[in-house]
Amino acid sequence: MNFTKMQGLGNDFIVLFGEQALPADAASFAVRYCDRNFGIGADGVVYVLPSDRADYMMRIINSDGTEAEQCGNAIRCAAKYIYDNGLIDASRTDLVIETIGAGPQPVRLTVENGAVSAVRVDMGAPILNGLAVPTTIDAEPVTEYPVEAAGRQFRFTAVSMGNPHCVIFTDDAVHTNLHTYGPPLEHHPLFPRRINVEFATVKRRDFAEMRVWERGAGPTLACGTGACATLVAGVLTGRMDRRGIVSLKGGDLLIEWDEADNHVYMTGPAEVVFKGTI
Amino acid sequence: MNFTKMQGLGNDFIVLFGEQALPADAASFAVRYCDRNFGIGADGVVYVLPSDRADYMMRIINSDGTEAEQCGNAIRCAAKYIYDNGLIDASRTDLVIETIGAGPQPVRLTVENGAVSAVRVDMGAPILNGLAVPTTIDAEPVTEYPVEAAGRQFRFTAVSMGNPHCVIFTDDAVHTNLHTYGPPLEHHPLFPRRINVEFATVKRRDFAEMRVWERGAGPTLACGTGACATLVAGVLTGRMDRRGIVSLKGGDLLIEWDEADNHVYMTGPAEVVFKGTI
Repeated sequence: MNFTKMQGLGNDFIVLFGEQALPADAASFAVRYCDRNFGIGADGVVYVLPSDRADYMMRIINSDGTEAEQCGNAIRCAAKYIYDNGLIDASRTDLVIETIGAGPQPVRLTVENGAVSAVRVDMGAPILNGLAVPTTIDAEPVTEYPVEAAGRQFRFTAVSMGNPHCVIFTDDAVHTNLHTYGPPLEHHPLFPRRINVEFATVKRRDFAEMRVWERGAGPTLACGTGACATLVAGVLTGRMDRRGIVSLKGGDLLIEWDEADNHVYMTGPAEVVFKGTI
Repeated sequence: MNFTKMQGLGNDFIVLFGEQALPADAASFAVRYCDRNFGIGADGVVYVLPSDRADYMMRIINSDGTEAEQCGNAIRCAAKYIYDNGLIDASRTDLVIETIGAGPQPVRLTVENGAVSAVRVDMGAPILNGLAVPTTIDAEPVTEYPVEAAGRQFRFTAVSMGNPHCVIFTDDAVHTNLHTYGPPLEHHPLFPRRINVEFATVKRRDFAEMRVWERGAGPTLACGTGACATLVAGVLTGRMDRRGIVSLKGGDLLIEWDEADNHVYMTGPAEVVFKGTI
């Protein structure tokens, strides 16, 4: 069986092409082959499958065998896989990929020397109503709201990109101790469904460094929705323009908050690490 | 470039065949491709190279770019690679592999259906003199010696297999909290060059379960020299026969302490996980 190992911002996947549906043993396959010592090693297995509603369907099986509804890093890898392997006409730079969680998603390809170098994904409109994010705060938007964690005072901006984020602008996001401040913020009573925490430092109006504490996961190399929330919070608080780079531990994402349709667009890399046979 | 991903007891390697010497960029290659998110992912890169003194030479570059002198799990992978790829005559089941740390090492292959399923490695004679292990104890052998760690009393047997080990027999090695007892034992004043700590439970005279705290590394899936030390300690204290299985988190090793030549022989698995191209 042939596979392609791909990664986007360090979030890595075993990508398989299926001419039919998801195989019956997809969960056990993922557990076995995502293992980083005894298997191929990956965060998940991405299946590129036929779709009735889009060019292709993508399904993601996590390393624990559960299915993920959606993943910004995985969809970029799937898009590159589809184009680079000639599964769509080479003239196409817009395609639609169906996911379990978000239905058909339009993506735009940047093609260099016949291969995809970056993929833009429509992340939808941000939710800025405090109660809808959700927080316990009845305001829209919720910006610079005070909160205390581990004995330190912060001010946050609340943004949902389908999942809830609290963005905190600080002088030195890169060196913030996420293990100290992440847990008390994630579990703070202001956030009834807990929250993802972003610490961001704006270096220019079009460039911010960000580090993320993901709800239920802790520090990760990259969080696409967190990068989107960071730019939106930067715009809402007058720190950033509507188009800028958010630089994460795993690499850079270009985030655009379109004034016309209110959608947030995220452009990022996808790379083939190697091709293999098991 | 073609590579083979192999593992022995969960210790995993990118195996490359070099017709010449180690490439000049071996250190940077290892750092880049051993990375488990952005690269292939491995504990190290194993180069199979020509040798003037043996059938082949093996060199191991760790994931941090430094060179390892020797590794029992790696040499089994190298031996299987050499045989399965036809780099020696198929009639050979004994071969000699040169390593930086131990010179030419004889290994014996178990071949099933034309491929190597297990490899026996001569691990040399154990060192049982207390001062030579080294410990601060002037006795030979050092068995059932009392030591306190984290408020608990233990008795250990000291064995060097080229590196120092303190073997502690307990009722429930598998559930021993290595993070509690490992650090104070590793750094105990009895051990001037620190020590590897093995907790072992003898289930039968030819079978022991063992968990290891490796000096400088903490808990690992498997430690070949620790498995050898465990059987030797089991024999010295009357618990085990000279031939038995030591079962580690990563899998089982057959250990034999030969009465004739006093050498310890370790037989264990080596497996191809996948073949790839970068």
